[in-house]
Amino acid sequence: MTRYEQLANTMAAQIRSGSLAVGARMPSLRQIIAQHGVSQSTVFRAYYLLEEWGLIRAQERSGYYVARGAAVARDSARPPVKTPAEPAKVDISNLVFSVLEAAKHPDIVPLGSAFPSPMLFPLQRLAKSLGQSARFVNPWNTVADLPPGNETLRSQIALRYLGMGIAQPIDEIVVTNGALEALNLCLMAVTRPGDVVAIESPGFYAALQAIERLDLRACEIPVDPRTGLDLDALAHTLQIYPVRACWLMTNFQNPTGVTLSIEKKKVLVELLARHDVPLIEDDVYGELHFDADYPLPARAFDKRGMVMHCSSFSKTLAPGYRVGWVAAGKFADKVQKLKLMTTLSSSIPAQAGLADYLQHGGYDRHLRKLRSALIAQLADMDAAIRRWMPAGVKWSRPEGGYFIWLEFPDPIDAMELHRLAIEHGISVAPGPMFSAARAFANCVRLNFGHPWNAKIDDALRVLGQLVRRTVSPAQR
Amino acid sequence: MTRYEQLANTMAAQIRSGSLAVGARMPSLRQIIAQHGVSQSTVFRAYYLLEEWGLIRAQERSGYYVARGAAVARDSARPPVKTPAEPAKVDISNLVFSVLEAAKHPDIVPLGSAFPSPMLFPLQRLAKSLGQSARFVNPWNTVADLPPGNETLRSQIALRYLGMGIAQPIDEIVVTNGALEALNLCLMAVTRPGDVVAIESPGFYAALQAIERLDLRACEIPVDPRTGLDLDALAHTLQIYPVRACWLMTNFQNPTGVTLSIEKKKVLVELLARHDVPLIEDDVYGELHFDADYPLPARAFDKRGMVMHCSSFSKTLAPGYRVGWVAAGKFADKVQKLKLMTTLSSSIPAQAGLADYLQHGGYDRHLRKLRSALIAQLADMDAAIRRWMPAGVKWSRPEGGYFIWLEFPDPIDAMELHRLAIEHGISVAPGPMFSAARAFANCVRLNFGHPWNAKIDDALRVLGQLVRRTVSPAQR
Repeated sequence: MTRYEQLANTMAAQIRSGSLAVGARMPSLRQIIAQHGVSQSTVFRAYYLLEEWGLIRAQERSGYYVARGAAVARDSARPPVKTPAEPAKVDISNLVFSVLEAAKHPDIVPLGSAFPSPMLFPLQRLAKSLGQSARFVNPWNTVADLPPGNETLRSQIALRYLGMGIAQPIDEIVVTNGALEALNLCLMAVTRPGDVVAIESPGFYAALQAIERLDLRACEIPVDPRTGLDLDALAHTLQIYPVRACWLMTNFQNPTGVTLSIEKKKVLVELLARHDVPLIEDDVYGELHFDADYPLPARAFDKRGMVMHCSSFSKTLAPGYRVGWVAAGKFADKVQKLKLMTTLSSSIPAQAGLADYLQHGGYDRHLRKLRSALIAQLADMDAAIRRWMPAGVKWSRPEGGYFIWLEFPDPIDAMELHRLAIEHGISVAPGPMFSAARAFANCVRLNFGHPWNAKIDDALRVLGQLVRRTVSPAQR
Repeated sequence: MTRYEQLANTMAAQIRSGSLAVGARMPSLRQIIAQHGVSQSTVFRAYYLLEEWGLIRAQERSGYYVARGAAVARDSARPPVKTPAEPAKVDISNLVFSVLEAAKHPDIVPLGSAFPSPMLFPLQRLAKSLGQSARFVNPWNTVADLPPGNETLRSQIALRYLGMGIAQPIDEIVVTNGALEALNLCLMAVTRPGDVVAIESPGFYAALQAIERLDLRACEIPVDPRTGLDLDALAHTLQIYPVRACWLMTNFQNPTGVTLSIEKKKVLVELLARHDVPLIEDDVYGELHFDADYPLPARAFDKRGMVMHCSSFSKTLAPGYRVGWVAAGKFADKVQKLKLMTTLSSSIPAQAGLADYLQHGGYDRHLRKLRSALIAQLADMDAAIRRWMPAGVKWSRPEGGYFIWLEFPDPIDAMELHRLAIEHGISVAPGPMFSAARAFANCVRLNFGHPWNAKIDDALRVLGQLVRRTVSPAQR
């Protein structure tokens, strides 16, 4: 082990033990040199490593801080890069549907839900915008607002990109029936049956379902719950297989909650550009950041129109309105035509209502409230996991969104846990939903998008008991 | 020619010459026997032939009447059944898009449009329903109204089926993003890449686009603008090729406006059932019937759940809301899952708004007004065609919907006509849009869904001149 690796490991242990608390400022360069008797470059390299491990974060002109996700106990050694798995057909849909169906009952504690509580959204204010814009609609817009979509809405979306420093041409923005349609259209735009697509593992099950539906093959790239996508594994896969598209979540990934660092996003965009592979970037949780700023998506570093940046208002403002979009770069025309052929257009009053709300409804004020609620709910969830889960469980502490990923130390069967939990009126999202290989049997995704209450806390208590019951007797 | 064929031809000539007027009661059996000196069975068979040609209609307990579409001058001889064309790949999308794009400008006289005038719809009353239902929405419905869709809306749709005498199980009704999504999902539900699909020729271009997009192959079945689909040709095709699905419009077909007789619909359903081929029935214009009753769709005669009956409110009530549905028979579960995977759900406030309107808004009253307007507009269009089009043009007189199909006697080039018309600020839908083989170069579809005015009349005058200009000099 080199000097800087030793130093990084020492400091990582301090962070994990809590002697350097989450959010605390890291010791200065001068302090470390004095304390450990190392050179300046050793400290730099150690900090670089700690940052790569997701344990610390640089803040401009202010130094390093212990990252929110840092208290996760994990091996600091990176797993060796293995030969990527061969592209595989996917057969996951029925599993996903049975899990979703089982969780549909309104009395179930929705820890497995993909949605946050609708009570967190300004539905009354939205209804006002919807009613007003429908009343004053120009009847001819029912024809003119065909794809790419409502002009005012697309301007408002472009303005939000501008707020991130991205000059997004309006004519590349196609309004869709939620982000799910955007993602599916993008995948159709750049693949043909039989093509290979690189996806995350664990990753959003809709990508698996789309690949299955379109007769594509999947290359699953490992995702580390702390540092995100394994770029070396992706690079390796791109060298070996004829990958035609890459479908990823770069911010607050579903299911792990992890966010790719800016540096990794830049490397990702360059890597894919070198191989001429389009990136379908699913960024539906980006607005739900707990830090001050929206973490820049990979789209921000794309100069060639190869990134299709998909998002929506479903998770941040208007569940059920089914209004999403894609900034589709050079594929915009293709995506727009596919939209015209398959669903024609998104609901025109819903688009107009959202456009009105974005102009007059106070979206940013709402987002600030929503983020505060999610941060508080994460703290409650975190405490409940400590209180009720068996020792040795690892979990992520995402910096945005509303998903937390639990990894149990013992070989439990998450599908069995899911089944037992439903019997007890609790839903969870079992790990095997999130991979073509149905891996992650010892993992579950929990949703903290619902205001905390005694019922949820008790559901965690019951889950903890069930986890213990599902560990095989030999392991107890 | 047999005796009864001679008799049928004689009477057909009387109808076409106008000596038997549209709507007039046909002579009685007794009168014909006396007048022509033929047997009773000859009259029966002649009337059967006239009915098959679409010239007369039987009315229960009341005898035969001259049919509305009867004044169309056509050869009475049926074309001999040829060996069906081989299933073919389709490449039509770009043609369709360029035609649609050219017609998008608001100042263009929209004779080529696929939509009726939005001024014919109760948009203000709908806005009221939309605003109210959004204000009083149960927030949890944003999750619960996932496919199959809003419960009240589906009940209201089932009630309309009941009005036709069809007991449609609610749980087979899946709400979709307009009929276009319904049709696409149905096709995906029953085919795999490479499969053969039977479609109409001429037929709705969206079927061609879907077949192209999904890598299917098309068998085009001829449609006679007076009598509809050639069932012999379909039967022949089913014998020869492994047809996996059939996609048809049975009422007021797009583009010809023709409606299949009840008898032919029954034969169609039996024929397909015998070959175990599912029928995707596109019935978006059914509510726009000019006679007293909704012409029963093929769905009404299906006992095995093999007919997927697709419709929407886009052409009858709420353009742009993007709310349609399919009564998908035994494929309902498959369709619902495909919907969940591709667009998740239709806009929930739009569904709730329509449900409220259907309960309280006076849909049937609106439909009566709309039908009256379309009937009047058809009369104006009919008169303008007589006034301005060259001699020898044939055209359909549909019994519902808002499309009329013109067939020019000379070999004109409809694509060239389309181009010239756009230059003159007029859109038309050229025949080649409606077939994979880009046939029907001497045909155009005109839209009479817009309140008649001097500008439209003048557009017909200009079109008449352009038609004369596009006839090749050798033909003049």
